[in-house]
Amino acid sequence: MQVRFKTVPGAIVAPLGFRASGVFCDIKRLGTGKGSDKGPKRDLALIVSDVPATVAGMFTTNQVCAAPVKLCQARVRKGLAQAIVANSGNANACTGPRGMRDALSMSRLVARLLHLPTDRVLVASTGRIGVPLPMANVRAGIRLAVQQLARSPQAAAHATEAIMTSDTRPKQIALQFSLDGRVVHLGGIAKGAGMIQPGLSASGRRPAAQPPHATMLCFLTTDAAVQAQTLQTALEHAVAQSFNRITVDGDMSTNDTVLLLANGLAGNRPLGRRSPELSVFQAALDQVCLELAKMIVRDGEGVSRFVTVRVRGARTFAEADAAARAVANSALVKTSWCGGDPNWGRIMDALGYSAANVVEDKVDIGYSAPGSSRILWSLRRGRPTNVSFQQLCAAVAQPEFDLHICLNLGRASAVIYAADLTEAYVEFNKGDVTNPAALGG
Amino acid sequence: MQVRFKTVPGAIVAPLGFRASGVFCDIKRLGTGKGSDKGPKRDLALIVSDVPATVAGMFTTNQVCAAPVKLCQARVRKGLAQAIVANSGNANACTGPRGMRDALSMSRLVARLLHLPTDRVLVASTGRIGVPLPMANVRAGIRLAVQQLARSPQAAAHATEAIMTSDTRPKQIALQFSLDGRVVHLGGIAKGAGMIQPGLSASGRRPAAQPPHATMLCFLTTDAAVQAQTLQTALEHAVAQSFNRITVDGDMSTNDTVLLLANGLAGNRPLGRRSPELSVFQAALDQVCLELAKMIVRDGEGVSRFVTVRVRGARTFAEADAAARAVANSALVKTSWCGGDPNWGRIMDALGYSAANVVEDKVDIGYSAPGSSRILWSLRRGRPTNVSFQQLCAAVAQPEFDLHICLNLGRASAVIYAADLTEAYVEFNKGDVTNPAALGG
Repeated sequence: MQVRFKTVPGAIVAPLGFRASGVFCDIKRLGTGKGSDKGPKRDLALIVSDVPATVAGMFTTNQVCAAPVKLCQARVRKGLAQAIVANSGNANACTGPRGMRDALSMSRLVARLLHLPTDRVLVASTGRIGVPLPMANVRAGIRLAVQQLARSPQAAAHATEAIMTSDTRPKQIALQFSLDGRVVHLGGIAKGAGMIQPGLSASGRRPAAQPPHATMLCFLTTDAAVQAQTLQTALEHAVAQSFNRITVDGDMSTNDTVLLLANGLAGNRPLGRRSPELSVFQAALDQVCLELAKMIVRDGEGVSRFVTVRVRGARTFAEADAAARAVANSALVKTSWCGGDPNWGRIMDALGYSAANVVEDKVDIGYSAPGSSRILWSLRRGRPTNVSFQQLCAAVAQPEFDLHICLNLGRASAVIYAADLTEAYVEFNKGDVTNPAALGG
Repeated sequence: MQVRFKTVPGAIVAPLGFRASGVFCDIKRLGTGKGSDKGPKRDLALIVSDVPATVAGMFTTNQVCAAPVKLCQARVRKGLAQAIVANSGNANACTGPRGMRDALSMSRLVARLLHLPTDRVLVASTGRIGVPLPMANVRAGIRLAVQQLARSPQAAAHATEAIMTSDTRPKQIALQFSLDGRVVHLGGIAKGAGMIQPGLSASGRRPAAQPPHATMLCFLTTDAAVQAQTLQTALEHAVAQSFNRITVDGDMSTNDTVLLLANGLAGNRPLGRRSPELSVFQAALDQVCLELAKMIVRDGEGVSRFVTVRVRGARTFAEADAAARAVANSALVKTSWCGGDPNWGRIMDALGYSAANVVEDKVDIGYSAPGSSRILWSLRRGRPTNVSFQQLCAAVAQPEFDLHICLNLGRASAVIYAADLTEAYVEFNKGDVTNPAALGG
């Protein structure tokens, strides 16, 4: 469905009945000499619905997954939730039984302060792996966040800021549309910049053709009424076409989490899987997830170019996906993008070693402006065209372009949203061993 | 077999009856403005045995493979060869029917000048993909190389130099040992610096647990007498433990080639698969291949650290291999090595998304000096030890160290020889679009 929806301000508080806040509680413990040099940035976010909401979730398929992920997986299955508490600066991953106690304790405190059942509170964390949470700071942060809960766009902006780690820009969106003649809203915030190639599923079981690999967090809210199972199915559909189709560095995080709360306050008839209007909700959800996913890639660590890799003509989707990911994750292809080099040799090389069937003299490779069907072909049926090197350089000199690959072996296609590999990525991630607490997880 | 053999000078001409040469014939066409800025470096190598030799070969399993690879695959199967001609500066890959005609033509000219049957001449190329060979230059180079054939260590050094591309150092070795009381020699030269994660097989079919991925070339000579099939089996064994266990950037080239000629002039009884002395030859071949493979990683593009990733306690070899490769190819792990950061969180993350079964609270992670069993454990059973961060930093500050990972789930193990990811790698590979001919393949 190619509807475009009206965007509105407010992100996660655009839907009726949601409040948010984002506070600084020093999760990195700046004063101890172990802290980050990023200064006192907000590091704890709270999102609350006035009434119980149906809930859906998708989580990392990494076998090493963080305590809050395990907690959410269990609670989302129950179908109802009302609050999300999330922190940056510490992933609460690889923290053993203590990590699980800390995640539970976070949810318990939120529940107590808001008079909610504990199992309706969800938890997410992002940041350094392997360090226990400073729980005194976290508790103080939660108390402050509860006090500051508000319905204003500024409150949503604070929550967005509080989940950022190496992100340089906040990522937020909200849409307004109508269901049953009722005005409904769908909003979301996200974070993620490195360790980005999510392979999310509801259960922790890996989706087919999703290689195991980012920390990304995404929290979505809507005032639409949607039955829990329908909400889960809709989220799985949206994530499959958005967050599970991006890669920054090919690394899948221990903490990737997408949560969606639907509180029904818009007053539409609850959407079930046979509701005629489900397709409208699905289209809106698809758009929100895709916009947020693309924001993550554009703001990837050190990223200077955003490339949409479009593979078609594969025998199966799994092969199209494998071909697109091989190209999108090849160090040599990514460095050539950094240099603005239309090097089709490296692309052919990556296709050749992918798990897709590839026949050298059938492959077409070309470039276009984002979303355009005016393709400048550099290779047709395995042979260079007479398009000049200068023309190709001009196409890939743009900060955003589409790379078109046609294998000409079948009818399946796949898209991956990818980024270049730059010196800035390496410099950022090699870290600073003189300042251990600044080293990313 | 843990025998160490005596090293001798002469590399590929150390064995009796071999001559070599390396010449400059301007395969990059420096004068045209399309050329490289590396100056007139030797770019065509010739290796010739005085008598027919049995031959074995291993080749890239990339589906997009270069014309010379296809030619060699067919000729090696016949079991006899006498000459190898190899060029750098141009991969003769993705060059269609013309590429195959050019490879054939190279072998035909060598055969004619040396009075050999054409099918006893093997061809290898490395360099830029997708550009036809400048055959006039290549032919002039072959004539010159034939004139300059010599048995001197200097001639071998010239051949080594002629196959170098982004390599900063020549890679050569020769061993002397005895079979049947006869003195025999085994020598080799190799090149490779980027596009390095070979997955070589004899047939082009992918070996199990070898993900498809470098251009590396390796030419081996021996004066031992070895039956062709035995030679092939011995080479497969040696490559499985050496070239197929290295990664620089995770990219598998279109041109990877290992060739071994055994001319029998040492006068030993020809080794067959039941010969008691085969194990001595195998041990020597294993050592030569492993030394050359490690030289490739140490001289990898921009590499500042050489890390031996040792995974044990996996359920199966395939899982041990998958775990080791996930760690060795993770952009975040590799950048942490660049920074000298003992970041076990990123290692756990990569293990978790690998295809290996991993249980977080069973994993041990530690460091040692190369080959040492004195391991400094940073993690035991998923929990940080009390080894200090400073001690761990000191261990990974070394230019070479071993990373030990024990999954504690089974008895299988695997080793991968890996490198860090540096700003210098990105800078080198992003290329210079103002100088297209300088862009690597």
